[in-house]
Formats: sequence, C-alpha cells, structure tokens
Amino acid sequence: MLARSEDRLSELTSAIPGARGYAADVGDPAAVRDAFARIRTDLGPVDTLLYNAGSGVFAPFLDTPPELFEAAWRVNALGLLLCAREVAPAMVEAGRGTILVTGATASLRGGVNFAAFAPAKAAQRSLAQSMARSLGPHGIHVGYVIVDGVIDIPITRAMLSDRPDDFFLSPDAIAETFWLLAHQDRSAWTFELDVRPFGEKW
Amino acid sequence: MLARSEDRLSELTSAIPGARGYAADVGDPAAVRDAFARIRTDLGPVDTLLYNAGSGVFAPFLDTPPELFEAAWRVNALGLLLCAREVAPAMVEAGRGTILVTGATASLRGGVNFAAFAPAKAAQRSLAQSMARSLGPHGIHVGYVIVDGVIDIPITRAMLSDRPDDFFLSPDAIAETFWLLAHQDRSAWTFELDVRPFGEKW
Amino acid sequence: MLARSEDRLSELTSAIPGARGYAADVGDPAAVRDAFARIRTDLGPVDTLLYNAGSGVFAPFLDTPPELFEAAWRVNALGLLLCAREVAPAMVEAGRGTILVTGATASLRGGVNFAAFAPAKAAQRSLAQSMARSLGPHGIHVGYVIVDGVIDIPITRAMLSDRPDDFFLSPDAIAETFWLLAHQDRSAWTFELDVRPFGEKW
Amino acid sequence: MLARSEDRLSELTSAIPGARGYAADVGDPAAVRDAFARIRTDLGPVDTLLYNAGSGVFAPFLDTPPELFEAAWRVNALGLLLCAREVAPAMVEAGRGTILVTGATASLRGGVNFAAFAPAKAAQRSLAQSMARSLGPHGIHVGYVIVDGVIDIPITRAMLSDRPDDFFLSPDAIAETFWLLAHQDRSAWTFELDVRPFGEKW
Repeated sequence: MLARSEDRLSELTSAIPGARGYAADVGDPAAVRDAFARIRTDLGPVDTLLYNAGSGVFAPFLDTPPELFEAAWRVNALGLLLCAREVAPAMVEAGRGTILVTGATASLRGGVNFAAFAPAKAAQRSLAQSMARSLGPHGIHVGYVIVDGVIDIPITRAMLSDRPDDFFLSPDAIAETFWLLAHQDRSAWTFELDVRPFGEKW
Repeated sequence: MLARSEDRLSELTSAIPGARGYAADVGDPAAVRDAFARIRTDLGPVDTLLYNAGSGVFAPFLDTPPELFEAAWRVNALGLLLCAREVAPAMVEAGRGTILVTGATASLRGGVNFAAFAPAKAAQRSLAQSMARSLGPHGIHVGYVIVDGVIDIPITRAMLSDRPDDFFLSPDAIAETFWLLAHQDRSAWTFELDVRPFGEKW
Repeated sequence: MLARSEDRLSELTSAIPGARGYAADVGDPAAVRDAFARIRTDLGPVDTLLYNAGSGVFAPFLDTPPELFEAAWRVNALGLLLCAREVAPAMVEAGRGTILVTGATASLRGGVNFAAFAPAKAAQRSLAQSMARSLGPHGIHVGYVIVDGVIDIPITRAMLSDRPDDFFLSPDAIAETFWLLAHQDRSAWTFELDVRPFGEKW
Repeated sequence: MLARSEDRLSELTSAIPGARGYAADVGDPAAVRDAFARIRTDLGPVDTLLYNAGSGVFAPFLDTPPELFEAAWRVNALGLLLCAREVAPAMVEAGRGTILVTGATASLRGGVNFAAFAPAKAAQRSLAQSMARSLGPHGIHVGYVIVDGVIDIPITRAMLSDRPDDFFLSPDAIAETFWLLAHQDRSAWTFELDVRPFGEKW
C-alpha cells in the first residue's frame, strides 16, 4: 500500500490486517522508483496494481493557476505512468498481471468547475486505454473504473452530512467490482465500466 | 427462454437443464405480449431479463435496403422496448429487478459495413441508457454489455475456422460477467462495460 | 423542399422565393420514392440533400408505447436512409454531392425523458456516420450537425415565451453553418459539429 | 505569432505579410507571461487566440519515459492554460473574444503508439471544454478542431513522399474552417468539429 504521508499510511494499514505501507508522492518520479524498489525487495514482483490516487481541487478556468493544473495532472496521470512503469516489465515477463485504475466521470467531459480535475482525469483515462491496448496482448489486464458519485468515507460524509445513505457509493461495493475485474477470464476482459448509486441522477 | 423458432428453442432448452422455452419474434408486439403472458402464468413475474437478441446482417449503405434496416432495428431496439415493457411494471411494483442487454461495439460508431447493424445497436444502447436513468431510482438495474469481438459458438467457429482459440470470446466468461452485474450491490451499479479477448486489437 | 403536408409546404415555399415543394411522409418508402421521382423529373439529379425532418415526442420509458418509439425512428432514422438512397447513386456517378443532417444532443445520450427520441437520433447519427465512411471516398460529403438547444421558430417561441432572445438558436445562424459545411474543400471535410447559443448550459 | 525558436519565427513571419513574431516555449509559465506582456504592449489586448502548438512523439507505453510524457502534456495542455489565462481576462472585460484550438483524433482515444500524445491531447480537449463552458456566458467562443489525418506541410510531405495529394489535409482548407468558426454568430456557436480528407479511412 502506497500513500503520500506516513500518517495516512498508518491509518490505512492499521485498518487492513496484513497490509504493508510505503510512503511516496506518486507524482514524484524518484520517490516512486524508491518505493517500488523497497516493495520488490520486501514482497517480490507486483502482480496486481490498483491505482486509486486522486485529487480533489475543483475550480473554474479563471481560478485555476498553473500550479493547481499541474498538481492534478501529477497525481492522476503522471503518477499512473510512474507506478505502472515500475510493475509492467515484470508482468510482461511473467505473461500476466492486472492494473486497475479508479477513474471518474470527469474523465469523459470537462465541466465548468473541473478545469484542473477533468483534464487530469481525461489524461489518466487516455493513458490507461493506451496501456490496455499495448499490454493486453502480453497478458496484462488494464481496467478503468469510472466512479460516478461520492464515495462513502468519513470525510465526504462529514462534508455532505445532510445526504441520505443512498446518496453515497459504498466502498465495499466498489471493491467487489474491482475484485471481479481482477478475476475475469482473459477471453472476455473489461477495459472500462462505470459505477454509481441506483438513485443517482446522470 | 425466448427464441424465434421452436427448433432453436429445443436446441437451447435441451442444453440447459431446467430451462423453459417460449417462441416469439421479439420484433412483433403481439407475439411478445403473448409470450410474456404465458411466462407470467407459468413462472410468475420476471425478476431478471437478459436481452441477447441480435442480428447479423453486415452491408454498406448502398447495399442496405429499407427492409434490412428495419429488420435490424426490430430485433435489436424495438424488441428490447417490447420485452422490457412486459417486465418493468412488476419490477417497479416490487422495487427491484434486473435488465441486462448484450450490446456491441457497433453501438458506439457506424462503420462502413454496418449501415443496418450499427444504427440498430446505437438505438438499443440509447434506449437502455434512457431506461437505466428512469428505472434506476425504482430499484431496477439496467446494464449494457458491449461485446467487442466474436463469441465462440459453433456457427462463428465454422465461419472463422482458421482463427486460434484466443481470437474468440468464451460464452462462459461473458456469462460470468453478466452474473456479476446481476449481483452488484445497488450502491455501485454498473450501467455499461465492454468485454473483449486479451489479444484483440481495438 | 419536402414536407409531410401540403399546408406546411405552402407555408414553407411561400416564405422562400423560388423554392419548389413536394409532399411526402419521409417514413413511408413508397411516398419517398414517388416524391424523389417527381423531383428528378422537375429538377434533375439532386446535388445537395439537407435532412431536417425530426420529431418532438418526449416521454420516459414507461410512457413510451411501441407506436411512439417506431414513429420517432421512422422520421429520424428510416427517413434519412430512404431519402439518401434516392439521391446517393447519382452523386456516386457524378463523383460529388452533399448530404447534411440536422441532429440533436439526444443522439449522444439517452436521457430520462427521451426514451423514443434519443434512440431515434442515435440511430440517425450512426447511419450518417456509416454513410460518411462509405460515401466519402466517392466524393460525397456527409455531415451531421448536433443542435444543442431550442431553435427560434414561432412554435418554440410561443411555448417558451418567458425566455430571453439569447436562449434560442437563430435559424439564420444555423443555416450559415450548413452553408459553410456544404462549401468545405474536400481535403478537410467535417463530419460532425455542434451548435449552441453562447449562454447555454451544457 | 508565437513560436519556440527565433529561427522558426523568422520563417513563419516572413511567409505571412504583416505578421509579428514572439519567441516563447508555451510550456514555460514565465516565458509565456513575458511574451504576452510584450504582445499587449505592442498590439493591445488579444481578441483571438489560435492555439496550434503540438508535439509529435509517438511511442507505446513501455517506451514512454516520464520526461516524454511530461513534455507532451506541457506543449498541448499546460501551454493552452497558460496562453488562455493571458488573454481571457481582457476578453471577459470586453464581453467578447475567440479561442480556437487545434486538436487531434488522439484526444478521443488512447491508441497503442500514443501513450504520451493521446493523454496530452485528451487533457487539452477536456480543458478546452471546461473553458468553453465557463467562458461562453462571458461572450467568449472557445472551439476545438479535431484534425484527423496528416496536414500537408513540407516536413510531412518529405516523410510520406509516396502518398498521393489526396492523402493530406490542405492547410488552407483547415484555415478556412477556423475562419468560419471565428465568425459564427453567437446564437449558434460550435465547440467541436472534425476535419479529414474525403478519402480518409476512419
């Protein structure tokens, strides 16, 4: 498990029995290289990469300075490239592997308040597609999960405390779908799917 | 199980223990109404509808007479409307139900040789989307599976006998993905996903 | 100029000096064949076809009977096939021609209240795409104009009398864009473009 | 006119009577700021921005180092943000302006050999869409032109010397379409259109 800060890592790994944590900023090439070197030393080659790193800055074009635009791209798009480059060569050698990415509806269109986030997600989705096309014939399953809505975690619950339970996506339900993707037979692999709560307007 | 001819039905139901067969042309409103009346009498209300009816005529625009264009639309688009209208009211009443549709990549774009098939599939996908949006809040999960490639069944194997096993999608693997869709938690429903063999160029 | 009723035709042709009117239901194969036979006799082969026929029924899935679903498809999709088949052979022979279609945003997605209209427009767009791909190399320019918003004509003004002028698309401005499409150099043809008022939320 | 090197600028400005040249790397925030400061001093506020800067590196995922991935994003996506931020405030104040961007088919999908280029173009298109949505109501027309094919310029002719004239897009024909976009009435603005040679397979 990779996270930016040691604090966040402690929180995450303590919640999941047996999980190992590695701190790295996914947008920093040297940090990613270093983290994966440690992972390989500790655990051997990676057979499944789940790329969930995201960013949550939302502003219209005129309020999007270059720094914000770049930060969103680093976490969502460059980070996927960096992490995938660390794991793909061993997967190619093994003839198998899985790389799944948590995407967003913003990857499909650029809304008014998404001048930084949407382009970053669009770049991420495009990269995942390119990876799927070039790595698929090597036996590597690349998948992109478009999350359409708000995931039910403490921070979003606190921010949207007036919403009913039905408003949120359950993390367990999303995880279930990731599990299924990771276990699909290679004669019928899914590249892309969306998930949203049953009552969501879309 | 619904199929156009009694012969095809015998073949299908004899292959699946416990399956019951009902003959109907899905593009014929009266026949669909009649078949579902019998199904309801025999089995009660339908809780899951899998709409697989398709058509396989491929020709460019100048070789697509109106009859062919209409036939493709009847089987793929009108048939979905007719069948779904037979099952949706009881699902709405029950507050639950599942309607899954076998789509195709042609639903996304109109290729040269798909002047009849692609518009029919595009209409089908658009209808499924509209259904998902209006039936979702009633607890009905509508899903669309974009099959990208050739399914491994006797007729396609015979036509493409020079292709390796890897070329085809396994029906069992596709069925596995339908099963998963039909069992997703309603807090994270998928409307659309694609399936293709790992080596497929796309 | 083609319209369903003689009354509508009189209205249209009297507004446009020099226009000739021909009555036909575009969803009726025999009527279309007959109308174009008369057009060819009177005016010779058609070099430019603008297909504007549309339909305006909006309802969710459960309120969309098969007759409505079929009627929308006949006017939007089948009608395009029928009219284009009447004019394309002579265009192929001449090595040139233009077929432009008035589309809608509903061609791109199936909204709740568009269970009949969206599938019909999706089929129309898919057919236009297939036509563009097969007729382009013959020198025939097929284009699809996605109108996103409400056109400023007496009937829409009456229905939406509380909206400001800016809310509507000007027919003259749309016509200007059709004109440009019809005059593009064949080294850089446009298949698809959208048009919407500058203040439109999208 | 903005270009990366003084040499390229001389070449471009000498070909266009009356053009003024300014050197800047569009991916470098300070350089862009400086160039536009000089432009404003010399010419006053900018009323039309054509963003044509692109990049031409094509490689599959495993051969795409982070530097290449970043360079493509800087030229195509960040550069558009930087340049548009220099011109948009004055356009908002004036209540009018035009920003047109030269896009590519790669903005729509991530092909095998486009692991750097496609994500950069996808980010650019998404940004342009977000800009169009937030700047449109201020009277600023943002448009995106998807070039599908190879433009006829000396370098591409030299690389593809075996292709017939028909293979290439004429720069003049593309310019014609940009001109039209820049002069559309604001009651029917186009955000996106594609251009391709009539014989192009797509």
